[in-house]
Amino acid sequence: MSLPNTLGSNFAFTCFGESHGKCVGVVIDGCPAGLEISENEIQQLLDLRKPGQSIVTTQRSEQDKVEILSGVFKNKTTGAPICLIIWNSDQRSSDYDRFIDTPRPGHADYPALVKYSKNNDYRGGGRFSGRITAGFVMAGSVALKLLFHNLGIKIVAYTDELGGIKSDVSGLTIEQVEKLRYSNEVRCPDLDSAEKMKAAIVRERGSGDSLGGVVKCSIYNVPVGIGEPIFSSIESELSKAIFSIPAVKGIEFGSGFAGSTRKGSENNDVYSKSEQGGVVTRSNNSGGILGGLSTGMPITFRVAFKPASSIASLQRTLNVTTMQENDLIVPGRHDPTVVPRAVPVVDSMAACVIADLALKGGFIPRVLR
Amino acid sequence: MSLPNTLGSNFAFTCFGESHGKCVGVVIDGCPAGLEISENEIQQLLDLRKPGQSIVTTQRSEQDKVEILSGVFKNKTTGAPICLIIWNSDQRSSDYDRFIDTPRPGHADYPALVKYSKNNDYRGGGRFSGRITAGFVMAGSVALKLLFHNLGIKIVAYTDELGGIKSDVSGLTIEQVEKLRYSNEVRCPDLDSAEKMKAAIVRERGSGDSLGGVVKCSIYNVPVGIGEPIFSSIESELSKAIFSIPAVKGIEFGSGFAGSTRKGSENNDVYSKSEQGGVVTRSNNSGGILGGLSTGMPITFRVAFKPASSIASLQRTLNVTTMQENDLIVPGRHDPTVVPRAVPVVDSMAACVIADLALKGGFIPRVLR
Amino acid sequence: MSLPNTLGSNFAFTCFGESHGKCVGVVIDGCPAGLEISENEIQQLLDLRKPGQSIVTTQRSEQDKVEILSGVFKNKTTGAPICLIIWNSDQRSSDYDRFIDTPRPGHADYPALVKYSKNNDYRGGGRFSGRITAGFVMAGSVALKLLFHNLGIKIVAYTDELGGIKSDVSGLTIEQVEKLRYSNEVRCPDLDSAEKMKAAIVRERGSGDSLGGVVKCSIYNVPVGIGEPIFSSIESELSKAIFSIPAVKGIEFGSGFAGSTRKGSENNDVYSKSEQGGVVTRSNNSGGILGGLSTGMPITFRVAFKPASSIASLQRTLNVTTMQENDLIVPGRHDPTVVPRAVPVVDSMAACVIADLALKGGFIPRVLR
Amino acid sequence: MSLPNTLGSNFAFTCFGESHGKCVGVVIDGCPAGLEISENEIQQLLDLRKPGQSIVTTQRSEQDKVEILSGVFKNKTTGAPICLIIWNSDQRSSDYDRFIDTPRPGHADYPALVKYSKNNDYRGGGRFSGRITAGFVMAGSVALKLLFHNLGIKIVAYTDELGGIKSDVSGLTIEQVEKLRYSNEVRCPDLDSAEKMKAAIVRERGSGDSLGGVVKCSIYNVPVGIGEPIFSSIESELSKAIFSIPAVKGIEFGSGFAGSTRKGSENNDVYSKSEQGGVVTRSNNSGGILGGLSTGMPITFRVAFKPASSIASLQRTLNVTTMQENDLIVPGRHDPTVVPRAVPVVDSMAACVIADLALKGGFIPRVLR
Repeated sequence: MSLPNTLGSNFAFTCFGESHGKCVGVVIDGCPAGLEISENEIQQLLDLRKPGQSIVTTQRSEQDKVEILSGVFKNKTTGAPICLIIWNSDQRSSDYDRFIDTPRPGHADYPALVKYSKNNDYRGGGRFSGRITAGFVMAGSVALKLLFHNLGIKIVAYTDELGGIKSDVSGLTIEQVEKLRYSNEVRCPDLDSAEKMKAAIVRERGSGDSLGGVVKCSIYNVPVGIGEPIFSSIESELSKAIFSIPAVKGIEFGSGFAGSTRKGSENNDVYSKSEQGGVVTRSNNSGGILGGLSTGMPITFRVAFKPASSIASLQRTLNVTTMQENDLIVPGRHDPTVVPRAVPVVDSMAACVIADLALKGGFIPRVLR
Repeated sequence: MSLPNTLGSNFAFTCFGESHGKCVGVVIDGCPAGLEISENEIQQLLDLRKPGQSIVTTQRSEQDKVEILSGVFKNKTTGAPICLIIWNSDQRSSDYDRFIDTPRPGHADYPALVKYSKNNDYRGGGRFSGRITAGFVMAGSVALKLLFHNLGIKIVAYTDELGGIKSDVSGLTIEQVEKLRYSNEVRCPDLDSAEKMKAAIVRERGSGDSLGGVVKCSIYNVPVGIGEPIFSSIESELSKAIFSIPAVKGIEFGSGFAGSTRKGSENNDVYSKSEQGGVVTRSNNSGGILGGLSTGMPITFRVAFKPASSIASLQRTLNVTTMQENDLIVPGRHDPTVVPRAVPVVDSMAACVIADLALKGGFIPRVLR
Repeated sequence: MSLPNTLGSNFAFTCFGESHGKCVGVVIDGCPAGLEISENEIQQLLDLRKPGQSIVTTQRSEQDKVEILSGVFKNKTTGAPICLIIWNSDQRSSDYDRFIDTPRPGHADYPALVKYSKNNDYRGGGRFSGRITAGFVMAGSVALKLLFHNLGIKIVAYTDELGGIKSDVSGLTIEQVEKLRYSNEVRCPDLDSAEKMKAAIVRERGSGDSLGGVVKCSIYNVPVGIGEPIFSSIESELSKAIFSIPAVKGIEFGSGFAGSTRKGSENNDVYSKSEQGGVVTRSNNSGGILGGLSTGMPITFRVAFKPASSIASLQRTLNVTTMQENDLIVPGRHDPTVVPRAVPVVDSMAACVIADLALKGGFIPRVLR
Repeated sequence: MSLPNTLGSNFAFTCFGESHGKCVGVVIDGCPAGLEISENEIQQLLDLRKPGQSIVTTQRSEQDKVEILSGVFKNKTTGAPICLIIWNSDQRSSDYDRFIDTPRPGHADYPALVKYSKNNDYRGGGRFSGRITAGFVMAGSVALKLLFHNLGIKIVAYTDELGGIKSDVSGLTIEQVEKLRYSNEVRCPDLDSAEKMKAAIVRERGSGDSLGGVVKCSIYNVPVGIGEPIFSSIESELSKAIFSIPAVKGIEFGSGFAGSTRKGSENNDVYSKSEQGGVVTRSNNSGGILGGLSTGMPITFRVAFKPASSIASLQRTLNVTTMQENDLIVPGRHDPTVVPRAVPVVDSMAACVIADLALKGGFIPRVLR
C-alpha cells in the first residue's frame, strides 16, 4: 500500500493523469527485456475500452491514441521502465463546477472534497474517473502479451449479467467465447442474451437511468503453483486489483457465495487423471485456486459492478457548505452502464496480477532470449 | 506483494510459523509509540479464535497463550517492532505423512507440493493451515485497540449465514450485536438462528461432512476520507487482507452482488443532513465507501467462506506419484465449519487494514502523547 | 528495492526515459495536496543542471523545458500523482552504434549488454546516462519547496573539491554559500578555488581528459527525530539515493573517514545549551545524525564523484564478440567533469529523501491547509 | 523505506528485539525452498560477533544461542518465513535509568527521547544498540550459505584500519585473508598490524577511551549484471544496508574518495581478456561495479566506523529536562572499539544485499532442486 498509485512489485505499473487533465498514463516497471511490443497492439485493446464507441457507452469522443514514451528500443522492451500515454482532448470541464459543494450521489465527490481539503481536481471525477482505467488497459496489453508469449496464458472476460439478464455460455468453447464476446456492443458471447441486454440499456438510457452487472473472467493455462502465501494469494492480489476499477463492489472465485451454502462433500474438487495424463480436478469449485495457489485448472472469478452512478434523471443531494438539501441534475455524457467497457479492463487487471505473480514465482525469466 | 508474508506498510505485520512447527508469531512494524497494550488484552481476542472451545470447533487442544517478545516497555509500545508469539503444543504430525502423494481435496497440498518441489512442511497444512490466523488475531488485537483509542472506531463481525441459514439482526442495536454475537458458539447475534446453525453443524459433524457460511462485518465511526486512491482503496486493501484468510472465496461491499441487478436511481445513496447536523446518506448501498474512500457511513462487507475442506467421510483423490486414483480418509480433528472461529479473524484483518490506512492518511499520529 | 525505478515510499518518485529516447520524466506519488508549484519554479532548478551551459559542461544543447502533465490543478498539488517531463531534442545516436561490442571503459556498457542480453538501449548510455538525473531534479524541486514551505528546511550543496583542489568556506555564512555557489560555473562558493577549478577543467578538456571531485551538502533546520530505525536511518536512505547518481563512488557523514582515526573522547559531540535555550552539540562530528535520527544540528555529508568516464583521448578496450583488444575513441560531446552539474542533483536527492522521511515521521501533514 | 525494520524485498529480513528486552530476532522472507541450514552453521558466524569473546570486546556475557523457530523442515528451508532468535540473559538495565534526561554523547539517546516522546526503551540503547546486529548476522549466515551454494560467491571482510593503524594484505591470497582474519581478536589478516591494533585497543581501554577504524570487504565470483537500475544499484543497496550498522559513518566503493582526485584516463578500468578467456578489467577502480551493475570483477568497498561512543572517562552533557550542563560517567561494559565485532556483520549485510539482488535478477531459482 505504500505507493497507492502503483500496483504490483515485479510487473508493476504506476498510474497518473486525470479525466480532464492533459493525459492519462502509466509507467510499467519490471517488464522483462526482449518482449516485442508495438503501439498498434496496445491500441487494439485500448480501442475496446474507448468511449463513444456505440449507443451503450458515453458519447465523449476521445481518440485514446497510445504513445510509447520510453522503455522500448527497436520494437522490443529494454528492461527499462515503459511509459505509455494517451492525451485527453474532448473534456467539457465547465460541466463540473457546480458539483464542488453539491456532491453527486454514488461518486467520490464528497469524500474527496473532505480528504483533500478542496484541492482535488473535481472535473469529470478527476482522479476517480473511470477514464483512468485506460491506463490499466495500456499496462494490461503488455502483460497479456507477456503471459501469452511465455506461458500460453489466455484471459477471457465477458459480460455475464447485465441489468439482471444472465448469459449462458454452456455450449460454447473457449475460443468461441473469446471471439463472440467482442462481436457485440455489450461484450456478451451469448448472442441472445446480448440482444436483451442491449435493449435494456437503451431503455434505461432513455429513461435517464443506469444499469449494473457482472463480468466473469477465466484464465487458462496457468501453471501449477503461481501465488505467494500468505498475503499474496491469487485471490488477494486479484481482488486488490479488481476493486481498483471504479464501480466494482463484489468479487467471488469459483463457486463463491453459492459455495458457502454447500457441504464440504459437494464443494470439494476431487483429483483425477486427465486424458493427457495430467493432474486435474473433476469439478472446479475452487476456481483454480487452493491455498491461494493455482492448481492448474482455469482460474475463474465473477465481478459485480454497481449501476453507473451518473444518471440523467433528477436526484436529491446536500449542499455541504450551506447544509441545504437540493435538487440535482448531472449533465454531461454518461455511460448508461460501465459493464461493457469494463470487460477489457478486467482482462487487463487480471493480466497484470498474473504477470506480477508469475515473475515473482520465477515462472517467467527476467530477460527473454 | 513484494513481501508475501507481510501485510500493510504503515501498520504492517509479518507472519511466521506453521501448524505443526514450534510456534505461530507476528512482528508488527509501524504501531505508534505510547499505546498501552498487555498480554491479557491480546489473550481475550485470541481466546475467541482458540481451537477446542466447543462442539462446533476442532478438538485440537491448544492454550494459545500469547507472549510479547519485543516492542513494549513499561506496558506501552515503544515504536519498535512488536513480536507476539504463541507456542504450539498439541500437534499430531504423524497423521499427515500419508498426504504427501495423495493430496486432500480442497486443501493446498497439491499446488504446494509442486510449487516447493516437496520441500514444504505438509504437517497439518503447514503454512496453509488456518492456525496461522492466530497471528492475524494477535496483530488485530493491537490494531483494534489503536483504532478505538484514537478514533473511537468499532469493528463488529458476526456469523450472518451458516449452512444456508440466515440471521436477522434488524431489530438489534450495534451494542446488542456486539455483545450477543459472542453469547453463543456460532457467533451469531440472532439467537434463534444461532440455535439452528448450531444444530446444523452438529448434524453435519455427525455425518462426517462440513458447512460453509457468510460473515458480515461493520466498521463504525470511520472518519471521512480514509483510503488512498487508486490502488489502496478501502475495498482493495480490505479484500486483499480478507482473502488471506483460508477458505474465503467471496467478498462484497454494501449492496454488492445484489446491487448489480439494480438501477442507478435505486442504488445511489442520497446525501442528507443528520439530526446532529452532519453529512449522511439516507441509504448505505455503497457500504460506506465511494471512490475507495470512507464516506463517514459504516463500512459494511460480507465474506463468503467455503465449507471446511477436511471432512471425515470417504473421498476420492489421485496419488500424484503413481497417478492412480485412491480412496482417501482424512483422519484428525476437524472444524466442521470454520465460520464461528473466523469471526474474530475478520475483525482482526479489518482492524489491521483500517489502522494501516488511517496511519497512511495522517488520521493517527506516529506517537501518542 | 522491489521497484528499482522508484525511490521513497511516502514522497516517492518513479523515473522513466533514456538519454536518446523521446523524453525523461518522473511521477511523484505522495506529495501532499495544497502545495503551490509551477513550471517556472521547477525550471529554475532544472536550468542549473542543464547541459550546454558553459565551457565546463557538455555542449549537447537541450532546452530541458519542464511540462507538468498531471497532479496539479489551479497551481496547487491535488494529492494525485504528479507527472513531470522534459523532451529530448539534441540526440546524436549514430555516435553510439560502435560501442555495442566494444564497451567504453568506466561506463555501464558491458554489464548492461550482458544483463539485458543485447536488448538495452545503448544510445548515449540509455538508461545509465547522467541525463536521467534531470528527473531527479524535477522531483527534487518539488521536495525542496515542500520542505522549505512546511519546515523551513534549506539544503545547500556545493563543489567542495575538484581535480584535487579544495575549497574553503570557513569564513562564509550559510546565505553566502547558498548564493556564491551559483555565481560561477563550477558551483564553488570559495571564489578563489572556483577559479582554479575552472582552469583545471579547461586544461583537462584540452588534453582530452576528465576530472573528479567532491560535493559537500548541508541540510539546515531539520527537526529532531527524523529517520526511521533501523533500516531507514537518515544515512541509509540518503546514501541509497545519492549512489543512484551516476559517477558517485563514496559518501561520508559528519567526520566520516577522518573520524574513524580519532578517539571517542575527540569524536563525541558534547551536548550543551544554545543561546536561544535549545539543545545543541558543541561540535558536529556526527553530521547531525545519531542512531540514524536527526539531532537538530545541520545534517552534513560529502559525496565523492569519480572523474567522468567519457574522455576524448585514445583508450584501449576489448571487443567482447571477437575477444580482440582494440583502440577506442569515444566521440561525442562530453562533460569534462560531472561535479558542477551534480550540485543541484545532490540537493534534489537530499530533498526527496528528507521529504520522504519527514512525511513518514508525521512531520508534514498529508494535506496543507 | 515503507517498512523500516525490514531490509530487502526478495531475500528480505525483518528485525525485532532490544538490547535489554527478552530477545533479538529476525524473520527472513523470500529464502528459496530447499536450502539446507542448521542451527550449528548459523551459530558459527554468530559466535564471531558474540560479546565477551576477548579483551578487545565488551565483557557482557551472552550465549547468543540461535534457535530456528519456523521455516525449516527436515533440515531444509520450506519457502515459508524463517524466524531465528537469540535470548538475552546478561542485561544490567539499572545502569541506564540515569540517561533518560542526560543523553550520552554519540548515542541515539537524545533524538530517540524526542522522537518517541519518552516511550522508547532506553535500556542499553534499546533498539539502537549494536546488539541488534546479532539479527543481521543470523540473516546473513543464511544468505552466505545461499550465495555460496548457488553461485560460489564468497564474501570476505576484515579490519583494514584500526586507530589509524593500516593493514597491508598485498602479499596474501584470498584464501589466506579469509583464514587469517579470524586468527586474531582484531580480525586483521595482516598479523603484524593486528598485533599493533590490539595493543592500541588495550591502551585506550586502559585510559577509558575508544577507537574507530575501517572494515574492507570484497565479494568474489559475482556474476555479471547483478544490480537493478536505477535506484537499486549495488552501491545504493549495499550502502543502505551498511549504514544500518551502528557507528558506520562512511562508505566508498573501489577507488572511492581517492579516485575523485584522479583523472579519467587514470581511473577508467581498461577491458581485456583474462587467461581463461573471459572479460576482465586490468585495474578495478570501479570496485567491480559500473552503472550500479556487477562487472564480474570483485566487488570491493571500505566502511568507516567512528570510535565507540561509550567511553569510561568523564564527559560533559546536558540534562535536557533541567537544561543544566552536567558531568557524566557512562558505566557498564563497553566495547573499546566496535570494529572487530563488526567484521562478520559487514559480511552478513553484504550477503543479504547480494542475495536480494541475485534473486531479483533471476540469478538464483526460487526453489532449489
